[in-house]
Amino acid sequence: MAETTQPKFHSVYSVLKAELLQDPVFDLTDESRKWVDRMMDYNVPGGKCNRGLSVSDSYKLMKELTDHKKGKELSDDEVFLSSVLGWCIEWMQACALLLDDIMDSSHTRRGHICWYKQPKVGMIAINDGLMLRNHVPRILRKHFRTKPYYLELLDLFHEVECQTVAGQMIDLITTLLGEADLSEYKYPIHERIVVAKTAYYSFYLPVACALLMSGEKLETHSGMKDILIEMGTYFQAQDDVIDCFGDPEVIGKIGTDIEDCKCTWLVVKALELCDEEQKKILYDNYGKDDPDCVAKVKELYKTLKIQEIFEEYETKEYEKLTKSIDAYPSKAVGAVLKSFLAKIYRRHY
Amino acid sequence: MAETTQPKFHSVYSVLKAELLQDPVFDLTDESRKWVDRMMDYNVPGGKCNRGLSVSDSYKLMKELTDHKKGKELSDDEVFLSSVLGWCIEWMQACALLLDDIMDSSHTRRGHICWYKQPKVGMIAINDGLMLRNHVPRILRKHFRTKPYYLELLDLFHEVECQTVAGQMIDLITTLLGEADLSEYKYPIHERIVVAKTAYYSFYLPVACALLMSGEKLETHSGMKDILIEMGTYFQAQDDVIDCFGDPEVIGKIGTDIEDCKCTWLVVKALELCDEEQKKILYDNYGKDDPDCVAKVKELYKTLKIQEIFEEYETKEYEKLTKSIDAYPSKAVGAVLKSFLAKIYRRHY
Repeated sequence: MAETTQPKFHSVYSVLKAELLQDPVFDLTDESRKWVDRMMDYNVPGGKCNRGLSVSDSYKLMKELTDHKKGKELSDDEVFLSSVLGWCIEWMQACALLLDDIMDSSHTRRGHICWYKQPKVGMIAINDGLMLRNHVPRILRKHFRTKPYYLELLDLFHEVECQTVAGQMIDLITTLLGEADLSEYKYPIHERIVVAKTAYYSFYLPVACALLMSGEKLETHSGMKDILIEMGTYFQAQDDVIDCFGDPEVIGKIGTDIEDCKCTWLVVKALELCDEEQKKILYDNYGKDDPDCVAKVKELYKTLKIQEIFEEYETKEYEKLTKSIDAYPSKAVGAVLKSFLAKIYRRHY
Repeated sequence: MAETTQPKFHSVYSVLKAELLQDPVFDLTDESRKWVDRMMDYNVPGGKCNRGLSVSDSYKLMKELTDHKKGKELSDDEVFLSSVLGWCIEWMQACALLLDDIMDSSHTRRGHICWYKQPKVGMIAINDGLMLRNHVPRILRKHFRTKPYYLELLDLFHEVECQTVAGQMIDLITTLLGEADLSEYKYPIHERIVVAKTAYYSFYLPVACALLMSGEKLETHSGMKDILIEMGTYFQAQDDVIDCFGDPEVIGKIGTDIEDCKCTWLVVKALELCDEEQKKILYDNYGKDDPDCVAKVKELYKTLKIQEIFEEYETKEYEKLTKSIDAYPSKAVGAVLKSFLAKIYRRHY
């Protein structure tokens, strides 16, 4: 599926970039236009584009199943518009990652040094993030203004952005409290951060975009939203495991969740399982920017067999999600949900 | 005029704050809610609220003159809604100032230390800025969703935000280039930064809000826009003079334009007027974070009588703007423009 939409999807990026660079609302000087051009190329493409690609993929699946024309290709216009929505998600993601990297003092992202760490960039990156963020409604306005679902689309993107910002806020505040006292790190707060910060825009947003394009109302699919949010929660737990145990060469960044005292699935699980002595190891070493401390935390994770426990959780989540999807009334939406699940199950990067 | 709307205007802030803190789209934890509450109080009110107040004031003037009922009070609903729009401008301004202060490494703002310099805040301030920025469409949605001008209002706020971000971008890039070579600092680039970064949201936006509330179309008032943009340009030149020569006690911050190598009205004028020897003083001392260098630049400004030249410019601008306003076809809009001009002419803070 991805094979057919992928090359077209990537060509849409250049179209959108060219439009934005010429958009009179920004009225850039030549020097600033060059900067924005380079800044977009550095930050917007270059990821796996899972979120972006899944709009076209989801829309195609929905259409096949509702029109009963399996395998029928989308029209050029449909491919273009669904790719545009996909890129809007990638643009929002680029903005969020760029700014998160400054807030987390990260060093690398997608195999390169972070944008704000580039020579001459520094805190200008904050304005670059705002620029990316402001590109999204410009793209939507240009390509969807006359669509009957335009206002719903604006609302959807804005709602998801609010949730992401609130999730980042809860994450930052929880981490501040956690630095003083780890005892606050329990599953409900972990879940709350993850749902708001990741699940909405990575899982719900692409499918919601495809639904709006298909002429559906979002309110009638609240069950779908719940399943996607659950999937997003599982996805983030995977991400936490990959941040800690993944190969930096493969994942394109050096994980720093332990140093950054993040409320991850791993530390929550470790705090649940540890005895008093092990608890002391966690309290003494978690959230310290010192390789020895990080090594001690990872050692403890191994002693507690957290990775094995994660695999059990993964199997259970898969079964639970499969059951919910099978019970879902709309076959078209069910097919989309299954394809999402298949893409992330047992991923290692 | 301001005397009647001002107390009502300030009470609207608490209403909006309470709504945002309870808005389910943000779904905050108790700890984060306390943080956002404090963050709003620190950053949103506390300015002079000139921009915010001018929406109600402008709307009132327009109504008096179009309805030929001079002195008739606005209804409670009209006061409330125009104040809400005024607060939206203050909210955008708060977001811009908060983030600009990080980018400029500023220390003080409105008589207090900058938010990001507060204990425990630091780079969390970036997300706080995004939070403020996301409050604006939430406020607009809640109070204007059913109005016939809702989409135009969203477009207006978004357009002005794009211009502000582009202006900040051109400012930052120009300053980067200026740090290497001051010869780029000429009036056209100064004007371009100022128009995009300040004039649109400080002058055009409040009046445009009042026009939309009055049921007017913005396209029919392009002449008004030109006058407001010109007024905003003059306002920023005043700001540049105040940053350099104003009393920090009165203006609530310590100006750092010279250290920050900003492309101000003052340095542009000095570069126009200086001889080779004076030019060397500027090149050697402008943009250096050293009190001796700053003193030498201020000394040169005095030698070149830049303040006196500014006063001449100010008189000429006043005459020019008065002429344009007198020639403006709509008396209602003309009255609004005159009241704006009267408020800023020869201001010292």
